[in-house]
Amino acid sequence: MKNIERVIISKALKRVDFGKEINIKGWVRTRRGNKNVSFIAINDGSTINNIQVVVDLTKFSEEELKPVTTGASVSVNGLLTQSMGQGQSVEIQATEIEIYGTADPEKYPLQKKGHTLEYLREIAHLRPRTNTFGAVFRIRHNMAMAVHSFFHERGFFYFHTPIITSSDCEGAGQMFQVTTMNLYDLKKDEFGSIDYSGDFFGSPAALTVSGQLEGELGAMALGAIYTFGPTFRAENSNTPRHLAEFWMIEPEVAFIEIAENMQLAQDFVQYCVNWALKNCIEDVEFLAKMYDNELIDRLKFVIENDFVRLTYTEGIEILLKAIENGVKFEFPVEWGVDLQSEHERYLVEQHFKKPVILTDYPKEIKSFYMKQNADGKTVRAMDVLFPKIGEIIGGSQREEDLEKLTHRAKEMNIPEKDIWWYLDTRRFGTAPHSGFGLGFERLMLFVTGMQNIRDVIPFPRTPKNATF
Amino acid sequence: MKNIERVIISKALKRVDFGKEINIKGWVRTRRGNKNVSFIAINDGSTINNIQVVVDLTKFSEEELKPVTTGASVSVNGLLTQSMGQGQSVEIQATEIEIYGTADPEKYPLQKKGHTLEYLREIAHLRPRTNTFGAVFRIRHNMAMAVHSFFHERGFFYFHTPIITSSDCEGAGQMFQVTTMNLYDLKKDEFGSIDYSGDFFGSPAALTVSGQLEGELGAMALGAIYTFGPTFRAENSNTPRHLAEFWMIEPEVAFIEIAENMQLAQDFVQYCVNWALKNCIEDVEFLAKMYDNELIDRLKFVIENDFVRLTYTEGIEILLKAIENGVKFEFPVEWGVDLQSEHERYLVEQHFKKPVILTDYPKEIKSFYMKQNADGKTVRAMDVLFPKIGEIIGGSQREEDLEKLTHRAKEMNIPEKDIWWYLDTRRFGTAPHSGFGLGFERLMLFVTGMQNIRDVIPFPRTPKNATF
Repeated sequence: MKNIERVIISKALKRVDFGKEINIKGWVRTRRGNKNVSFIAINDGSTINNIQVVVDLTKFSEEELKPVTTGASVSVNGLLTQSMGQGQSVEIQATEIEIYGTADPEKYPLQKKGHTLEYLREIAHLRPRTNTFGAVFRIRHNMAMAVHSFFHERGFFYFHTPIITSSDCEGAGQMFQVTTMNLYDLKKDEFGSIDYSGDFFGSPAALTVSGQLEGELGAMALGAIYTFGPTFRAENSNTPRHLAEFWMIEPEVAFIEIAENMQLAQDFVQYCVNWALKNCIEDVEFLAKMYDNELIDRLKFVIENDFVRLTYTEGIEILLKAIENGVKFEFPVEWGVDLQSEHERYLVEQHFKKPVILTDYPKEIKSFYMKQNADGKTVRAMDVLFPKIGEIIGGSQREEDLEKLTHRAKEMNIPEKDIWWYLDTRRFGTAPHSGFGLGFERLMLFVTGMQNIRDVIPFPRTPKNATF
Repeated sequence: MKNIERVIISKALKRVDFGKEINIKGWVRTRRGNKNVSFIAINDGSTINNIQVVVDLTKFSEEELKPVTTGASVSVNGLLTQSMGQGQSVEIQATEIEIYGTADPEKYPLQKKGHTLEYLREIAHLRPRTNTFGAVFRIRHNMAMAVHSFFHERGFFYFHTPIITSSDCEGAGQMFQVTTMNLYDLKKDEFGSIDYSGDFFGSPAALTVSGQLEGELGAMALGAIYTFGPTFRAENSNTPRHLAEFWMIEPEVAFIEIAENMQLAQDFVQYCVNWALKNCIEDVEFLAKMYDNELIDRLKFVIENDFVRLTYTEGIEILLKAIENGVKFEFPVEWGVDLQSEHERYLVEQHFKKPVILTDYPKEIKSFYMKQNADGKTVRAMDVLFPKIGEIIGGSQREEDLEKLTHRAKEMNIPEKDIWWYLDTRRFGTAPHSGFGLGFERLMLFVTGMQNIRDVIPFPRTPKNATF
């Protein structure tokens, strides 16, 4: 086969130098045709769009084309031609075809079209080859780029907080234990407790549930940092909203208070959603067409509206008034309760018809490190609420006062010996600071319109499932 | 205190609108002066450079300035002034000073200058506040940005491979087990084996040692992907080169062979090093001055030279000839041995005086998935060797032939049931493909000139150490 420089299909589709001989490589999506001509749709993963290869059957034998079935991997030399077909601008008139790898139609699991998402989850090793998951994972890449670009432009530093940790101060949920001990020969001490001195870290260790506390250490030195890494929850929740392993983004900024933190959160999500509309509109449009025809409206809704800011207390009042007016909620509403998704969505979708940021939550339902308000009842927490999703971001101004923080930690039974290093930031050069956390897969659900969180991460980890 | 918009110090230092009143916030690095005037050096983490605040002692009392000690956190309003002092272009004539947080000179661990790196490792929660670690972590951020930018520009997709996995096919080292089982009440089956059916994933699970195999699944769908995430080795190695938790970058590309893979590796590292010289030269210069005055020469050496490409066999011949000529090595040299750092550095620093890419290693010392050469003895592996560091990148063309791959896996005792999903990429639409791995901290060691890998990651995990 003649050696011609390969052109990536996303680029080939934009070329206009018709008549030029180019090479493309990729996987066969479909093949159709008649006695005289065969049309092969080829995709190389660079774009949702296939390139059409036209094969003149007077130049190729049926024998040669026989292995060109869905899933086969091929290299094609041919002339770039203006396409007469609908919905495509260029095609390739094949001069040479090389088959790298076949895909036996009897065995290839993606042979037939229209698989359910449930079925595709079972073959997560192959599903990135489908249109849906190709689109989802290209968008995922783009959302990660948006995250890094946003913070880089603003002078934040990407800060790698540890994955394995010996502290669980967030109390954010059950943790995975990490060990190198031989479980068949666990050593015990004289009191019958497991002796961790022989374990790798010399003490019990677990997978992190949040990088925030370490992120604050970074912010109190570098000024403004963000984390972007995997976090873990060992909750036995088999729902479309839970993963045992997911990616979190946690910016933390010295010298900013809650108001600036809210603006940062708004700017951040709007930047990401805008990036999706600008840089992966074809993939977004494909998913909108397939799964959710209100998707693009929802994305625009978020970038075109300022987020409404109000307190939790004001939010409760609105919900109570709604109930008075006949709105029904499944869960009770009263001051002090944690809001449910139905309440959050009512505020966003029915009442304000805008994204909403709720602040100043009852301290009892929030973490120990949040800045205490003068009322003695609330803390400077903030939750960003989105249509369809509910809470997409949770954050707060942090308590910078050593005494208040220590006191609250004690009230919440967090041993000082576990957080001495965290308290040191308040002991030495403390300052107002704030931050928030965004579950990356939540953002992905919002931007792709997918319904199940297992469909926006390549290899979901859930109860009883760590395959691939 | 008057409310004036805060200016980040890196930006304030570049301003020329002298006479304007601005606000800066940050931490006191030093304070010196005389009866009439006090000079406070303030740093906010945005840059290695401090801004000098000049305090006229006729306007501020000694009492007010007493808490302004090293480590204290302050907000300063003042007039931007052209500086007469050496090495700085602007300073601030203070009009108002607010102290957010003090740092008791008797207790603040960073009070005195000149701490050893060993001591600073003990207080990893505070060391980002030092010049050295500020510089290192700003460079770390920049190297991460370089990684993402490089691949994004080339159309690669960032692909999140799993952290928790039930497969160890790389055989790359001892793994950390991940479990939610109650170690005090481990269930056993009738044969006395631990019953994992009650564990979170229903089977033994561990932390990943590499995302490559899953990365290949991505590449065989999306065309070109890269991973960038934490990886883990439970090796009990207490050396300046080993971490239990570190970050890896692993690009994987469909349709490219070893030659293109080598070029990709060269382009990639050169891009990163170039980024450092362009975007964080002040931090690099600081580290060069403090720790390693050949650092910048070494960085330039790598971007100004094409990498020499030769086979392992040719490399061995050069080393044998060197021994003939009187060069002494600690470890023996003969065809078949794994090269030691001293051998690699001889080739790079003494013989070629250029970065080197060695290829076609004996199959016995490389992994099962590498493409087998026709000689039956070697595989298409490639190692990129750098001055001072030795191996910085390891990669290969992958074996795309199902039969050869299965055969080699069997020879190396890798059960087919553990890699059926990996083999599926060769079963359906297989194609030539290649990739490599770069340990992010190796790159960081090279770019910062730091000697100990624990000093280039915020919170190092090593045997007996998972603090913070």
